[in-house]
Amino acid sequence: MQATDTPCVDKVWISIFAADHGIAAAGVSAFPQAVTAEMVKNFVNGGAAISVLAKQHQAALEIVDVGVASSLNGINIIHQKVASATANFLHQAAMSEVQLQLALQAGKDAISRALVNNSQLFIAGEMGIANTTSATAIACCLLDFTAQQMTGAGTGLDSSGIQNKAKIIQQALDKHTDIAHQPLIVLQQLGGFEIAAITAAYINAAQQQLPILVDGFICSVAALIATQLNPEIKPWLIFAHRSHEQGHQYILKYLGVKPLLSLNMRLGEASGAAIAIPILRSACALQVQMATFEQAQVSQQ
Amino acid sequence: MQATDTPCVDKVWISIFAADHGIAAAGVSAFPQAVTAEMVKNFVNGGAAISVLAKQHQAALEIVDVGVASSLNGINIIHQKVASATANFLHQAAMSEVQLQLALQAGKDAISRALVNNSQLFIAGEMGIANTTSATAIACCLLDFTAQQMTGAGTGLDSSGIQNKAKIIQQALDKHTDIAHQPLIVLQQLGGFEIAAITAAYINAAQQQLPILVDGFICSVAALIATQLNPEIKPWLIFAHRSHEQGHQYILKYLGVKPLLSLNMRLGEASGAAIAIPILRSACALQVQMATFEQAQVSQQ
Repeated sequence: MQATDTPCVDKVWISIFAADHGIAAAGVSAFPQAVTAEMVKNFVNGGAAISVLAKQHQAALEIVDVGVASSLNGINIIHQKVASATANFLHQAAMSEVQLQLALQAGKDAISRALVNNSQLFIAGEMGIANTTSATAIACCLLDFTAQQMTGAGTGLDSSGIQNKAKIIQQALDKHTDIAHQPLIVLQQLGGFEIAAITAAYINAAQQQLPILVDGFICSVAALIATQLNPEIKPWLIFAHRSHEQGHQYILKYLGVKPLLSLNMRLGEASGAAIAIPILRSACALQVQMATFEQAQVSQQ
Repeated sequence: MQATDTPCVDKVWISIFAADHGIAAAGVSAFPQAVTAEMVKNFVNGGAAISVLAKQHQAALEIVDVGVASSLNGINIIHQKVASATANFLHQAAMSEVQLQLALQAGKDAISRALVNNSQLFIAGEMGIANTTSATAIACCLLDFTAQQMTGAGTGLDSSGIQNKAKIIQQALDKHTDIAHQPLIVLQQLGGFEIAAITAAYINAAQQQLPILVDGFICSVAALIATQLNPEIKPWLIFAHRSHEQGHQYILKYLGVKPLLSLNMRLGEASGAAIAIPILRSACALQVQMATFEQAQVSQQ
């Protein structure tokens, strides 16, 4: 990927895209919508998992507001709010065409910042209450799954909560049968602003030859959209971990990839990808620093 | 394990035990016996995988010669040679009772050094041409497997090499049917000095409340012996990775453990365990540094 025999991923860029979802009104999450903004503040204040992991691994971390419902004015983040949450896709398209373009642009812009800072690896993360509902609906549309098959617990629904979430997703799917297999339209109709931003970030990073470490379920749905839009980008995607979220296995299987880790994490916010950073650094260190058998005068087979 | 709510594994101690094996004369390895000593020199010179990984993770690394066939005088390692290789267990016991005690002592001594240096995590590694043959024979004896079931490629045998290795191991097992299920006698009859040293190191580390990160197949065989000798130590063993080596899965299953990584590594020398170090450090960092939902003022479910 780096076209060198001395690869290096010392400089890692993490962009967390935060947005709210109209579908949250349908009661699909274990947490209230206010948590999206509260967690953005937690990221900035250093108390979230990704804050701790980015610090552990000396990775640059930025937060991008692409559609958090409440105001985040005055907070030290990238302000690129497309709207105050998407619309509820049970009733209408989640976003307009213009909004889709703005969200995609936010993803492209993150890659520009990563490249200006000489980053060697890009990681996207997401925060958005109800975004597993959006991601699950998208994955069903693109892979011909029923909601029942694909729906999982998200941040921690119990079994009746999962049933309710699957029922709502199926209702949305039944309204949108005409859009299946059209990734950009599916993204507009069912997507979140953060999912759109990550989709564009992945495509743009790959086009700029910046390797990508993909986080869990929601980021893998963005990777699914991105690879359906542009299959050429797939070699640039390294999958970090297998999430505990039900639907993730189907997406990984469809993409034909085996992630580095399988630790039953399901936190989002790029935490699974961050934990995999040292494995890539080990791979680079072994490639660069190990002696060959010839150099070390080790006898051959 | 550390009896604190601020756990820390910054200080990691890695002891690589190197020894040769009489059974190598039976042609069970893809590499000549000389490689054991050559690799010890490579460890010391910084060119081996474990040298690179220990440096990456700022871990202390020591090499202990417990029975390398050729002289390693003048090399900067711990010199505790029990003999110049074990005897060939096709014809006699691999080691005498006295030799077994000396090898066990070498393992205990490593833990003393780790503790004097305030280590917070212990990793054992091994180097010894033909030691998957010894480890496989031990595992068969302790778990009632045939050689055919347990034997794998080691450092890289082809399929006819694996068949030959399995035949030789089965010959040895057929001679030693009287010793099955007696871990210390099995270790003496079939063991390597490095496997004995690691067995004792694990027991001693656990008794001293020093957490242990277990490497791959050969170290897991030492863990198997150690837990059969003293089941109380098991909670102190963290399993780092699932090796590509055929028999490893049976040992992990018997022990009822799921390792952190599954990267199809099969290099030995503690390399799999070293790659898992940052995951434990992430776990500690998340425990110590993350804000609670209350502290971060995040709304509850």
